[in-house]
Amino acid sequence: MEDAIQKIDGFFNPRSVAVVGATKKIDKAGHVIFKNFATNKERGVFKGDLYPVNPNEDSILGFKCYKSISKIPGDVELIVVIIPAKAVPAIMEEAAQKKVKTAIIISSGFKEVGNKELEDQVVAAATKGGIRVLGPNCLGVYYSKTGIDTLFLPETKVLTTGDDVVATPRPMPGNIAMITQSGAFGVAALDYLTGRQMGVSKFVSFGNKCDVTESDILHYLLHDKETKVILVYLEDVKDGREFLRVAKKVTVKKPIVIIKSGRSAAGARAAASHTGAIAGSDKIYDAAFEQGGIIRARDMEEFFDIGKALAMQPPALGKNIGILTDAGGPGVMTVDECESLGLTVERFSEETEKKFQDLKDKDIILKIAATSNPVDLTGSVTDDMFVISADLMFQDPKIKGIILLGLHHMPGLREKYIDGIVETAAKYSKPIVMCDIGATEMALYTRSRFDRLCVPSFESPEDAARAMKALVAYGEYLQKNGCSDEYISAFKKVCTPK
Amino acid sequence: MEDAIQKIDGFFNPRSVAVVGATKKIDKAGHVIFKNFATNKERGVFKGDLYPVNPNEDSILGFKCYKSISKIPGDVELIVVIIPAKAVPAIMEEAAQKKVKTAIIISSGFKEVGNKELEDQVVAAATKGGIRVLGPNCLGVYYSKTGIDTLFLPETKVLTTGDDVVATPRPMPGNIAMITQSGAFGVAALDYLTGRQMGVSKFVSFGNKCDVTESDILHYLLHDKETKVILVYLEDVKDGREFLRVAKKVTVKKPIVIIKSGRSAAGARAAASHTGAIAGSDKIYDAAFEQGGIIRARDMEEFFDIGKALAMQPPALGKNIGILTDAGGPGVMTVDECESLGLTVERFSEETEKKFQDLKDKDIILKIAATSNPVDLTGSVTDDMFVISADLMFQDPKIKGIILLGLHHMPGLREKYIDGIVETAAKYSKPIVMCDIGATEMALYTRSRFDRLCVPSFESPEDAARAMKALVAYGEYLQKNGCSDEYISAFKKVCTPK
Repeated sequence: MEDAIQKIDGFFNPRSVAVVGATKKIDKAGHVIFKNFATNKERGVFKGDLYPVNPNEDSILGFKCYKSISKIPGDVELIVVIIPAKAVPAIMEEAAQKKVKTAIIISSGFKEVGNKELEDQVVAAATKGGIRVLGPNCLGVYYSKTGIDTLFLPETKVLTTGDDVVATPRPMPGNIAMITQSGAFGVAALDYLTGRQMGVSKFVSFGNKCDVTESDILHYLLHDKETKVILVYLEDVKDGREFLRVAKKVTVKKPIVIIKSGRSAAGARAAASHTGAIAGSDKIYDAAFEQGGIIRARDMEEFFDIGKALAMQPPALGKNIGILTDAGGPGVMTVDECESLGLTVERFSEETEKKFQDLKDKDIILKIAATSNPVDLTGSVTDDMFVISADLMFQDPKIKGIILLGLHHMPGLREKYIDGIVETAAKYSKPIVMCDIGATEMALYTRSRFDRLCVPSFESPEDAARAMKALVAYGEYLQKNGCSDEYISAFKKVCTPK
Repeated sequence: MEDAIQKIDGFFNPRSVAVVGATKKIDKAGHVIFKNFATNKERGVFKGDLYPVNPNEDSILGFKCYKSISKIPGDVELIVVIIPAKAVPAIMEEAAQKKVKTAIIISSGFKEVGNKELEDQVVAAATKGGIRVLGPNCLGVYYSKTGIDTLFLPETKVLTTGDDVVATPRPMPGNIAMITQSGAFGVAALDYLTGRQMGVSKFVSFGNKCDVTESDILHYLLHDKETKVILVYLEDVKDGREFLRVAKKVTVKKPIVIIKSGRSAAGARAAASHTGAIAGSDKIYDAAFEQGGIIRARDMEEFFDIGKALAMQPPALGKNIGILTDAGGPGVMTVDECESLGLTVERFSEETEKKFQDLKDKDIILKIAATSNPVDLTGSVTDDMFVISADLMFQDPKIKGIILLGLHHMPGLREKYIDGIVETAAKYSKPIVMCDIGATEMALYTRSRFDRLCVPSFESPEDAARAMKALVAYGEYLQKNGCSDEYISAFKKVCTPK
């Protein structure tokens, strides 16, 4: 492993961890974080050595407590620091003495509130000791595989009714890496991803990024086999040139989706008082992201939607899309959105049109079905009609991807078609996304089942179209960068039917 | 009641209904629709006389069945027609003889598949008899209060696991009218509205609109006391001038939100084969909607989001918005979106700034809180901090509406603040919308609770900003049309705290 990567890997795979500021007071961040480690150690997930550090305690949760880092008998690879800001520089000096390799500084009260000097002292001590620092003013790391969990927000809350409800959940393992400058957006993202059953490979909240930057983490994730897509929330970029250099390397291997806030003048002002970010001209960011092959999401929902599509489906090798629907109106809405995004919805090749006519002649699909793209099987759709039509569309060389609108309301449609669509899609390297509209049981069931089988599902026609647009845009980017069609098609569909 | 209104009212308040094409075959639309009426009659909701019409049956669900409409002894005000298209003209002739007042023609196979002549015959018979016709090729009407329910899609479906799940739910009563050219979009909308707990006053799917048009329904809804907001899905407008004339009358009384599909060339082609719509130039629609004060939604999600905001909150009397957050990043995202939508997020008046400083001096809010709009109370927020800050912001004359970002993840935030915010908001006529991010228990609970107390909640910062934009745009429209501030402020918040 190259040195820079190995250093960053210390945040995810440390053999020993000291929690500086661990405490018995249960409502404190220092307690929550230490308890996360202790619990994960007990469960056998965190396999390293664990040391609480606090001059005022003898033991915490059954672990012997140390007065200072220097008093710990064994090696300490990672320290997690949750103490008042002004005490942090001294701790870093001590950590350097102890040959600590990495530090996550959770504490706030640095640059973001004007204390730049204090932050500089931290950096100076860390640099001298060769310690890589994440933060300060951050949430740190969540990595389920090794049990690194520095999230200090309560996992559940008790309502006044007495009910204990999930408040800050931990997502299941998956192939999406989430890195964020805003801690609040980070936990919100974890909540969203968990609820939508989107799995996470690594989570990193880097806050003020006094040392480890977005570029360092991207470089690490480039080589991380568990990560297929990288989602990034940014308010500014520390070193534009370095960022672009790394991004270009990453994006030919795995997509980066970004939400960059502080777009507007008032937004930039707000960002400055938040993470001390200097937002800079938004147009420059736009240009840089485009150059680096980074997909910029327009808003939060698109951010996650695009991430989901790229995590499950291969990029498209062209922009002409086939639309298959059982609902006329939503079909029209999808066509509209595709065209407004620069995708095309052209008529099929003659061969495909003939094949559809043949299906009509044989009464396999309805005579009144529209079959010139979009294919509208009408409210009289059946499972078989959907599956056979999807297969024909995949075969058409003009069609580079399919948007399926499977509105579950139609009387003849059962959930059987879901497996049929997934099996058919698995035969082709072209991407497919789907939409079902509704917010009650059958809609939730349908979308969740498609998601689990890795055909990404969306709640509106436009969301589905935007997801497809991202698959097209990423394919175009790869082609423009000299990637062969074979290379691009090797971005396999993640799941295959059982 | 004016005559035109009384006629349309016959679709919602008929004293007698005949279901032509009622049948015992349980998978048929004619069975589902008749059963809806029979069940609603049994439940005491539908209070009129009910007659099944079918030459091949003696009785259906215990109701004496009639061979034809003419054989029915009593008056028949409304007929619901579910028979093959080619038999419909004759039925309409008979209905005219019987002095039927209104007809809902569910049957398809008319203009939308090229049978314009057949549709013309229906219109001719109806016109001669003075019958108002809804459809054909539509889903008809759902009106919970009188038990009119011509939706023939299965309310539940049985999965292969044996589980019976809700497939096409009926929404709760409320103040949103939903009218739609696409039946599929209509049921999808009902599913969405039900799941999101948005109540519906009247639902009308008008399909090919051979007689009753969007304009007729809008005119009716103008006078409908149960309707506060009108949501419209359109593929074309039948008579542009009439539509504009009616819309202008309506929009100074209640907002109309539209989703108009067939925007693109390919979309228009798809629309033509769907409801036979001639979509026309999208720019002309844009101009007409603007002239008529109609709010055009960009996509499905915005359509419902705007509807929700307008159903619960009064319009804003200006475009300068206050943002109150416990999460820095999402706060910045909100500012960005507001500014990109043409709203402003200006610093507070000096007086407000002073009041906030006073709160800091008294340690009521944190010294590190940002208080110059956006107000960022930070992750150390408490219930009380949120409520007192909201109150100060409402008081500022420069602030015309508030976007609250209450990310529930923060340790010191409990659900108590929800009631506090609602009580505070109730004191002012300025609108408020909120956002909490996440998709697990506490997020769902928080949003649902705000919704029930009529502070509309949204899943992303941008969605909240767009909802506020609609409240601002509607307020501006009313002002431009000479409505006084008092008139506009009289669009009361719908709920008040208990």
